Amino acid sequence: MRVRNKPWAEDYIKQHDGIVVLEPSQNKGKWKQAFSHTNRPVHLEIGSGRGGFIQGMGAKNPEINFIGMEVQKNVVVSAIDRVKEAEVENVRLLHENADQLSDIFEENELDTIYLNFSDPWPKNRHEKRRLTHQSFLSQYQQILKADGKIVMKTDNQHLFEYSLVSFSQFGLRLEEVTLDLHATEDPTNVMTEYEEKFTNKGQPIYRCIISNHK
Amino acid sequence: MRVRNKPWAEDYIKQHDGIVVLEPSQNKGKWKQAFSHTNRPVHLEIGSGRGGFIQGMGAKNPEINFIGMEVQKNVVVSAIDRVKEAEVENVRLLHENADQLSDIFEENELDTIYLNFSDPWPKNRHEKRRLTHQSFLSQYQQILKADGKIVMKTDNQHLFEYSLVSFSQFGLRLEEVTLDLHATEDPTNVMTEYEEKFTNKGQPIYRCIISNHK
Ligand SMILES: C[S@@+](CC[C@H](N)C(=O)[O-])C[C@H]1O[C@@H](n2cnc3c(N)ncnc32)[C@H](O)[C@@H]1O
Ligand SMILES: C[S@@+](CC[C@H](N)C(=O)[O-])C[C@H]1O[C@@H](n2cnc3c(N)ncnc32)[C@H](O)[C@@H]1O
Repeated sequence: MRVRNKPWAEDYIKQHDGIVVLEPSQNKGKWKQAFSHTNRPVHLEIGSGRGGFIQGMGAKNPEINFIGMEVQKNVVVSAIDRVKEAEVENVRLLHENADQLSDIFEENELDTIYLNFSDPWPKNRHEKRRLTHQSFLSQYQQILKADGKIVMKTDNQHLFEYSLVSFSQFGLRLEEVTLDLHATEDPTNVMTEYEEKFTNKGQPIYRCIISNHK
Repeated sequence: MRVRNKPWAEDYIKQHDGIVVLEPSQNKGKWKQAFSHTNRPVHLEIGSGRGGFIQGMGAKNPEINFIGMEVQKNVVVSAIDRVKEAEVENVRLLHENADQLSDIFEENELDTIYLNFSDPWPKNRHEKRRLTHQSFLSQYQQILKADGKIVMKTDNQHLFEYSLVSFSQFGLRLEEVTLDLHATEDPTNVMTEYEEKFTNKGQPIYRCIISNHK
């Protein structure tokens, strides 16, 4: 996502300690306790962008605790505003890079990981940056529970093809796949910003659900 | 495929012993010897219809021996004519039902199985008839070599979604998936009759390649 630089972003993030978890590795192994209701499953979105999905999921599923991770500070600030306005108390944000996942989460700590409209990195030489590259999958497998899930949505045909093969080669199982999510009504679906944009353009949205099965 | 009844079809098939293998279970375990060149890999298409694919593959790949299996006699006769006219000596036809596979082929006897535009059987209660139902996959796994492959092409979104999940749940690995086969040129691809029809209508063709990995 290309966004204008916001010189005030870093300060803004620091001022929102609480919504943003500033030292997330301190919560490693005890993420449940980072929320008001401390005995609930924890779901993580990686690359949460402006936060529409994680805020919407939080509002819709009060019995689940949600964490949105986003590496770009200029984007995190928009997510802060969204979460603040919506007054959802079961959503936390992390200004972090996914390559730090195993420093932030303990083994078996998460129930679900969401990958929404991840950057496609179409060039072969950038394969390692794709969030469904084997090196990321091995981190996901570690921090997910034995019966945990990965839910991926994207409009990008080649990233989706790549990811299906990557999951399979890594030994993860496909539970569900749809090649046109919005062809049928799914009342549990929460749209992301990118999803709104591409759906309005009439593009099909792909989704797959992967189960960990350790 | 709906076709007109041809009362002469059964006789016609019998008259073409050689192109059609009339007692295929007699070849079980020795299919290589059913061909002029007896030391070549054997590939099987299930539901070969009018035979365009299997004849085209035979002509294009003289170093491989091909078998086309088709259950409808009124369709097999068209495939006979195609194979006869093309004078391909590395193609045999079977007038058989896929549920007989383990009577016809020995374990590890096949290198590749092709499923081209298989009947979608969209109703849940017909799931067992789909050629990618677990019961068929277990037969394919048995008769395929340890490093054998299944190559599936279809225009049918729901059959493709179902099949990807079915392969994965059965423990078979995805080697390749494309959601729009004809968006890029693949010189090795041989079009089937259904593929020509749907491609001319502008519909995308899905393909996946599955590896056995026993
Ligand atoms: C294309 S945007 C999609 C945003 C949002 N998920 C949506 O669907 O509207 C991808 C987002 O992922 C973030 N991202 C990419 N790589 C990341 C990483 N390694 N760790 C955390 N966030 C990442 C980007 O900064 C960007 O905001
Ligand atoms: C939709 S047609 C496609 C024909 C051809 N493969 C093509 O792509 O043009 C499916 C074919 O599979 C055959 N078929 C369906 N179930 C079968 C089975 N269990 N065993 C053998 N053939 C079968 C049908 O008779 C039909 O001819």
